[in-house]
Amino acid sequence: MGAFKMRGATNAVLQLSPEDRKNGVATHSSGNFAQALSLAAKNAGLKAYIVMPENAPAVKRDAVLGYGAEIIGCAPTLEARESTLNQVVARTGACFIHPYNDINVILGQGTAAMELIEDTKELDIIIAPVGGGGLISGTAIAAHYMMPGTKIYAGEPFGADDAYRSFRNGEIVPSVNPQTIADGLRTSLGDKTFSVIKELLTDIIRVDESEIIFSMRLLWERMKIIIEPSGSVPLAAILREKTMFKGKRIGIILSGGNVDLGNLPFK
Amino acid sequence: MGAFKMRGATNAVLQLSPEDRKNGVATHSSGNFAQALSLAAKNAGLKAYIVMPENAPAVKRDAVLGYGAEIIGCAPTLEARESTLNQVVARTGACFIHPYNDINVILGQGTAAMELIEDTKELDIIIAPVGGGGLISGTAIAAHYMMPGTKIYAGEPFGADDAYRSFRNGEIVPSVNPQTIADGLRTSLGDKTFSVIKELLTDIIRVDESEIIFSMRLLWERMKIIIEPSGSVPLAAILREKTMFKGKRIGIILSGGNVDLGNLPFK
Repeated sequence: MGAFKMRGATNAVLQLSPEDRKNGVATHSSGNFAQALSLAAKNAGLKAYIVMPENAPAVKRDAVLGYGAEIIGCAPTLEARESTLNQVVARTGACFIHPYNDINVILGQGTAAMELIEDTKELDIIIAPVGGGGLISGTAIAAHYMMPGTKIYAGEPFGADDAYRSFRNGEIVPSVNPQTIADGLRTSLGDKTFSVIKELLTDIIRVDESEIIFSMRLLWERMKIIIEPSGSVPLAAILREKTMFKGKRIGIILSGGNVDLGNLPFK
Repeated sequence: MGAFKMRGATNAVLQLSPEDRKNGVATHSSGNFAQALSLAAKNAGLKAYIVMPENAPAVKRDAVLGYGAEIIGCAPTLEARESTLNQVVARTGACFIHPYNDINVILGQGTAAMELIEDTKELDIIIAPVGGGGLISGTAIAAHYMMPGTKIYAGEPFGADDAYRSFRNGEIVPSVNPQTIADGLRTSLGDKTFSVIKELLTDIIRVDESEIIFSMRLLWERMKIIIEPSGSVPLAAILREKTMFKGKRIGIILSGGNVDLGNLPFK
């Protein structure tokens, strides 16, 4: 699926106890994690239940169904997602796996940075996007143990800057009506991801929408890879703060290729 | 640049005698080969002269200039290209390197198939697009020596099917007013590429425009890589002839990511 979510979903499924595996797994997600958990469960021979808002695009529903998961529709609000999920768990006995606020998911996401560090050795900086915080937390933990001293930055859209404000305030400031093309980054931090971010991050850099689109286009044109807006945010952050990053060896986590090719932001 | 042209251009430059290197290299091209030869020459410390139609997109001109080559404009006809090139060669003493009808270019293009064969070992079939024939000829030669018995197919648009007609007729039938979105495949075969094609190809499969666009979209969505229409033609050929390819181990040469992101064929 071209996204890091598969790493966290796989690790979370593999870490389940025999007891927890018995009734399958459940989550709420309209995006890549829904597909990732469905596929990870399928690979492990488990059932997966995915709570998904009823307005989710057909292409995402089809992908989840294609991996053999069961979709349970809900209204497109966080409350509806959570209450529907609770009903599903009560009914099925499935083990809930949170899309990012779960230590095994976080550690799974960290394997991208592990591989980057194994391949490159000497990096001054690693940068990744921050939404719910699973990827950046895993990245920071991997760097902390494998390449201590590396500075860890996150990129975040101005229109969904709850991580920036939480980091500055020292406590979680939830996202309210986030507005950004980077749809993977509209989620708010969880307590587990925030505790890692607070301790291990160097800083969070905010970027505006035009910077995200410019960086996305640059990645498509020069690297010839399909990166969704959320995945382009770290490059946007580097280009925004050129002076700060000049002359450094920088590792960028590029992930996520979920785009509607019939509705691209390029002119 | 995301295209196989760099392989042929590099090999052609590296094979030049000290005498031929002296005054640099020249070619006519409005596409990837212009950039490839410019960069290959720069890497070898040579001058490059590129004859380019005056209506070539600014982005392509800029890329060539960025590699330090000199652009000589001409009218957008084959005659103008060739006469302008002859003038440039007469004036500068540069060594002309044809974009595809050149054995060292052909052998360089064959390195893509070499690497594919080294990585995969047991392929029943290799398929590549055919335009001027450089890539498919190099591919066929590599397979002939490294994995004899492999069937070699080419994919070609119906709207530019000079290779198909030449292959059927046993002699070159030049392209007349080719019409296809696969702009890299509008060129006609050369005598050198045709002689390889005639001897080593199994067959050429033609595809229509909607098949090219469908395959391109499938590659973007599933593999998350930017492939231009020309590069999507081999997959289109496989999907057109599903029964023939069913159950086979197939190597596909995917190459070329030159697309105008502001003007994509997706709806």
